[in-house]
Amino acid sequence: MSKTIAILTGGGDCPGLNAVIRGVVRASMLQRGWKVLGVEDGFDGLVEEPLRVRELDLAAVRGILPRGWTILGTSNRGNPFSYPVKKGENVELIDISAHVLENFFKLGAEALIAVGGDGTLKIAQGLNEIGLPVVGVPKTIDNDLRSTDVTFGYSTAVEVVTEALDRLHTTAESHHRVMVVEVMGRDAGWIALESGIAGSADVILLPEIPFSMDKVCAAIRRRSESGSRFSIVVVAEGAFPDSGDKVRKKSADQNFGVERLGGIGQYVAHQLERCLEMETRVVVLGHVQRGGSPIPFDRILGSRFGVKAVELIEQSDYGKMVALKGRDVVDVPICEAVGSLNRVDPQGALVRTAESLGIMVGR
Amino acid sequence: MSKTIAILTGGGDCPGLNAVIRGVVRASMLQRGWKVLGVEDGFDGLVEEPLRVRELDLAAVRGILPRGWTILGTSNRGNPFSYPVKKGENVELIDISAHVLENFFKLGAEALIAVGGDGTLKIAQGLNEIGLPVVGVPKTIDNDLRSTDVTFGYSTAVEVVTEALDRLHTTAESHHRVMVVEVMGRDAGWIALESGIAGSADVILLPEIPFSMDKVCAAIRRRSESGSRFSIVVVAEGAFPDSGDKVRKKSADQNFGVERLGGIGQYVAHQLERCLEMETRVVVLGHVQRGGSPIPFDRILGSRFGVKAVELIEQSDYGKMVALKGRDVVDVPICEAVGSLNRVDPQGALVRTAESLGIMVGR
Amino acid sequence: MSKTIAILTGGGDCPGLNAVIRGVVRASMLQRGWKVLGVEDGFDGLVEEPLRVRELDLAAVRGILPRGWTILGTSNRGNPFSYPVKKGENVELIDISAHVLENFFKLGAEALIAVGGDGTLKIAQGLNEIGLPVVGVPKTIDNDLRSTDVTFGYSTAVEVVTEALDRLHTTAESHHRVMVVEVMGRDAGWIALESGIAGSADVILLPEIPFSMDKVCAAIRRRSESGSRFSIVVVAEGAFPDSGDKVRKKSADQNFGVERLGGIGQYVAHQLERCLEMETRVVVLGHVQRGGSPIPFDRILGSRFGVKAVELIEQSDYGKMVALKGRDVVDVPICEAVGSLNRVDPQGALVRTAESLGIMVGR
Amino acid sequence: MSKTIAILTGGGDCPGLNAVIRGVVRASMLQRGWKVLGVEDGFDGLVEEPLRVRELDLAAVRGILPRGWTILGTSNRGNPFSYPVKKGENVELIDISAHVLENFFKLGAEALIAVGGDGTLKIAQGLNEIGLPVVGVPKTIDNDLRSTDVTFGYSTAVEVVTEALDRLHTTAESHHRVMVVEVMGRDAGWIALESGIAGSADVILLPEIPFSMDKVCAAIRRRSESGSRFSIVVVAEGAFPDSGDKVRKKSADQNFGVERLGGIGQYVAHQLERCLEMETRVVVLGHVQRGGSPIPFDRILGSRFGVKAVELIEQSDYGKMVALKGRDVVDVPICEAVGSLNRVDPQGALVRTAESLGIMVGR
Repeated sequence: MSKTIAILTGGGDCPGLNAVIRGVVRASMLQRGWKVLGVEDGFDGLVEEPLRVRELDLAAVRGILPRGWTILGTSNRGNPFSYPVKKGENVELIDISAHVLENFFKLGAEALIAVGGDGTLKIAQGLNEIGLPVVGVPKTIDNDLRSTDVTFGYSTAVEVVTEALDRLHTTAESHHRVMVVEVMGRDAGWIALESGIAGSADVILLPEIPFSMDKVCAAIRRRSESGSRFSIVVVAEGAFPDSGDKVRKKSADQNFGVERLGGIGQYVAHQLERCLEMETRVVVLGHVQRGGSPIPFDRILGSRFGVKAVELIEQSDYGKMVALKGRDVVDVPICEAVGSLNRVDPQGALVRTAESLGIMVGR
Repeated sequence: MSKTIAILTGGGDCPGLNAVIRGVVRASMLQRGWKVLGVEDGFDGLVEEPLRVRELDLAAVRGILPRGWTILGTSNRGNPFSYPVKKGENVELIDISAHVLENFFKLGAEALIAVGGDGTLKIAQGLNEIGLPVVGVPKTIDNDLRSTDVTFGYSTAVEVVTEALDRLHTTAESHHRVMVVEVMGRDAGWIALESGIAGSADVILLPEIPFSMDKVCAAIRRRSESGSRFSIVVVAEGAFPDSGDKVRKKSADQNFGVERLGGIGQYVAHQLERCLEMETRVVVLGHVQRGGSPIPFDRILGSRFGVKAVELIEQSDYGKMVALKGRDVVDVPICEAVGSLNRVDPQGALVRTAESLGIMVGR
Repeated sequence: MSKTIAILTGGGDCPGLNAVIRGVVRASMLQRGWKVLGVEDGFDGLVEEPLRVRELDLAAVRGILPRGWTILGTSNRGNPFSYPVKKGENVELIDISAHVLENFFKLGAEALIAVGGDGTLKIAQGLNEIGLPVVGVPKTIDNDLRSTDVTFGYSTAVEVVTEALDRLHTTAESHHRVMVVEVMGRDAGWIALESGIAGSADVILLPEIPFSMDKVCAAIRRRSESGSRFSIVVVAEGAFPDSGDKVRKKSADQNFGVERLGGIGQYVAHQLERCLEMETRVVVLGHVQRGGSPIPFDRILGSRFGVKAVELIEQSDYGKMVALKGRDVVDVPICEAVGSLNRVDPQGALVRTAESLGIMVGR
Repeated sequence: MSKTIAILTGGGDCPGLNAVIRGVVRASMLQRGWKVLGVEDGFDGLVEEPLRVRELDLAAVRGILPRGWTILGTSNRGNPFSYPVKKGENVELIDISAHVLENFFKLGAEALIAVGGDGTLKIAQGLNEIGLPVVGVPKTIDNDLRSTDVTFGYSTAVEVVTEALDRLHTTAESHHRVMVVEVMGRDAGWIALESGIAGSADVILLPEIPFSMDKVCAAIRRRSESGSRFSIVVVAEGAFPDSGDKVRKKSADQNFGVERLGGIGQYVAHQLERCLEMETRVVVLGHVQRGGSPIPFDRILGSRFGVKAVELIEQSDYGKMVALKGRDVVDVPICEAVGSLNRVDPQGALVRTAESLGIMVGR
């Protein structure tokens, strides 16, 4: 029986978003004869008339599988349960969720597929509780979502960082020198940990394990004394020293101060130059990690997630999120996945593997 | 307590072999103070005096993580349980396993880590049964080993094929044309299936599903009639038409005949030109898929397998193979993994996903 | 003064075509306020009413710089001076050049930029002689056009082949084995020669130097006897043995016979297996070399060619082709560039460099 | 007639150094039967007994063509004409050139090939004037050496930066945002200029053209107002605002101050956030640009340079530097190449091409 469904993408960039959209459109149209509506700019597209919604046919998703970014855009303003609205001089946060729900049903769609991270999925769960038939698709470049083995985009980011580390290895040996590479990971250090293992880092600093600058210096001095000409330190942007000084980048709306000039990477480099009297160089890969063509793993995972989301709608199985478990794509309640993060376990197998390989995982 | 262990690699090339060797050496030496011996050329290194064995220290494994191939080489001659020995004019196959066992113990090593595919692991299992303390590490470019979610090397191969498919997409549209890409997969079609999904193939032909040439032609004609200027067919080298004609490449020791000139890729292209009257072009990626630097996933998996193998030896837990299950590296009895292959399930989720995406998975 | 100009692309695929189109559109619109028309499918777009022409604005060329293929398509049918027209049962070749000229002026355009290889440029030159203001932009994946140091697309092809050779190197050593890699180059062996040097081939076979199969066998046997476990042979598709047997692939409209099953790569592999009794493996990269994202060199060269073509039109300097000489983009008469090919000089510096490096360049 | 020659590499890392060494060794040994000595760590290897020199045979250069870095290392301490020597508490700079010359002749070598940038080539020229038969090979990642069209390594750096820009393009559009990418180029902006063209930057800032921060802000505001969601600014590390404030990174031996935290990239980002009230993100690629496998162009150029250097020695043609002119590798007097730099011409063709494409090249 014919059906109309809708899809939106929320949050930051993540390679594989287009694979999900394409998977949803093709699985809906080719096998089921359904119609798919694309909501633009996340939940924002459902807030104001005219609603920013367009039909997605096969032509609309042609050629997008290897492309970064999302053809639908993501949200800029925010959460329908706490939406910023101008009142005179001020901005108030008000709950417009009922209004969004109403707008959604005007589309004539039976269900919504919401692709996003913790924030987007919480909203989806909230809307589901007040009557929106919703299926969630997890998205996080940092791999910090629970209830799924891994998400798309993350493996692409690990590959970008590892390629940079490969290049640094050959050049690092040119002088006695320390290379500090700051990578993504505000709350979870998966990218730093996995790319550090794959790219043969000497020290990895994570948000989950406050590090002692003294011990990092000592480790690098030991390497240098035993004949290693160089060391490579991979530091997640959310890592911080056990002194408690959080050396975070300030967000854009804050005043620009000294602490903004360089994040934790600059801080670590500065401290290392001080204690080691070795040249130190900093690489900040930034958004290079979030963009570009997804690697095959992420294309396949995104496609499978998209197809599975359509299958859940076919079964009217709402309030669920698709997830990867081992080789299988399964579904879990959205509420199980959101709220707390999937962080690196300091005593877990992967940290211990890194340590077995001789890598100092910041303590 | 100090220990000496040995490691060998068997079978064809597979990106990630060096990651395993490096993982074994570093986990043994850095944390445990063990000594590691590298056996050259697989079991061949243990057959004749002088045994081809050298000590592997940290310097020996420096810089090998991103390198293809194995610093130990792999075997050329064969199975100690059925070893080819010249007797006058003839070659006889004799069981020299006891002799190999004896040679192994001369090394002073307590245990052997055998890295290889179905063949190597069967030998390892056989030697274990007659007294060799052995741990297996699975290796197969085709991903056709059971008891592990995936093996290292395979994901690198999928990436190589997908990159080729990406390039073909842009050029395929230049004329009405069919591109046939022959990829590895003698008995299992995983590479064809996953790279076909990631690279947006139109038809995928696998060893597990005999294909009807008529239906393939009909599918491509339908695409052409609906306005698609080109089609891409990915065919595993072991795929064959339901007519029963096996169009295999003959092995090197056979006489060179017409049937050798081109494998199944050429056959499919030939048949398509005949029935469609469209230009057809063939790409044969061959050993390009087996070589080169492993992608990060394979480096990490190889490293984890190496570390886990050392942990099993530490626990004197022999006759086991390391394996990936979900996010965890576990161990399984070698005997469970060998003997039958991990092949694509024609009714399984991944084939159904491909079909949902509109791909014809050869029937 | 405002102006309208047109652009078309002809011939096979070549990475960088979109860079030219984008360069023409941006240089015309942003600095000069001109209007640009895109003619679809080469000269075919100017043959029949309705003409296949569309306006190209900035949005039309947004994001196309890193994309393979051409947004305008290329011609399928052919040469206006010898155009295939059905007459009853037969196809006659007639001169419709005056008709094409007339159609062109209906567009209101003052000049045409024709991007293409020897064939397209000859047509452009012919149309220029009968009154069409034309500027040529050279395009050849094989680098076989005279009067320019190099063309876009070629360097991308060399990079694709070199990456394949890099991967083959690691895997080639796994057994005593010869790898034969067939690459593009029907009349000129530049791709084989340059990628063979960059990818460390042992033997390179070119269309310009008929090769002796005996000498190739002898060279590989010498390598093998001196301890090299493997050899890599790069063979251009147009290379042929001095026996005079041309082992060309037959074109699509010919009957499919034994000789079609594999081109010169298969032939060479066959002969090597025969004389060497070593395993031989063939890689046929085919159209993978023509597609995909252009490397930066080709993007820059294409962009510079596009800008220069606009400058020539501004100066009403017609009948010219843009060209690269050293660091400069210059112009040359089209008639100087067409008619004879830029082929590898068997006694030239690059062949001698290859030989100095120890590579046998097929004799 | 048999000969012994020596080779050394000086200065910073640059992909293609190993290609030169390999070219020298193979051209010397295979065709001429010469012996090649490798001097380690630049001229430092010739300063103290025991001299750091080793014979380079074919095995020593096997497999190094695709590898970054140099198997010989480069110098750390310095210039023989002004060599730092400890005298009590102080370091004095003394002329030890005669001593180095003497040491060189002890090796029994007839000539030296010196591979390096402006500094190394000046030393080579100086030693040539006092009697050392020397041939120079130009090396500069920044492409700032005169008398050669281009040097090896540079094109690899452009490719690394362009790949990063490609990835940034997809992610930049996610929010109204400016991406600032700081790239190498202390005195010459070639990398910024060419990768900016290839990677479709909106603004390029070079050391050769002091930029007005106001005009940069205005340009980006115009883009934003005309509907572009994002802008990409590529800034060479040596670029500076016309205010005259040099915002250089301080070198390692200086005290670490505020100004060190972030170079010109951070400065530009800071200023843009201030004037535009848009989010700004910074990427600092740093030494990632100097390392890793050279692209084919750089492998071929390095190989050709190595072979040509051997030919010059064969002709006893000393005091010369090899160079690329158009398609040819030629020789020029070293003294012509050193002393002043090859910088971007603010009125030159390449800057004008960039401007024609709509890129603001900082004024």
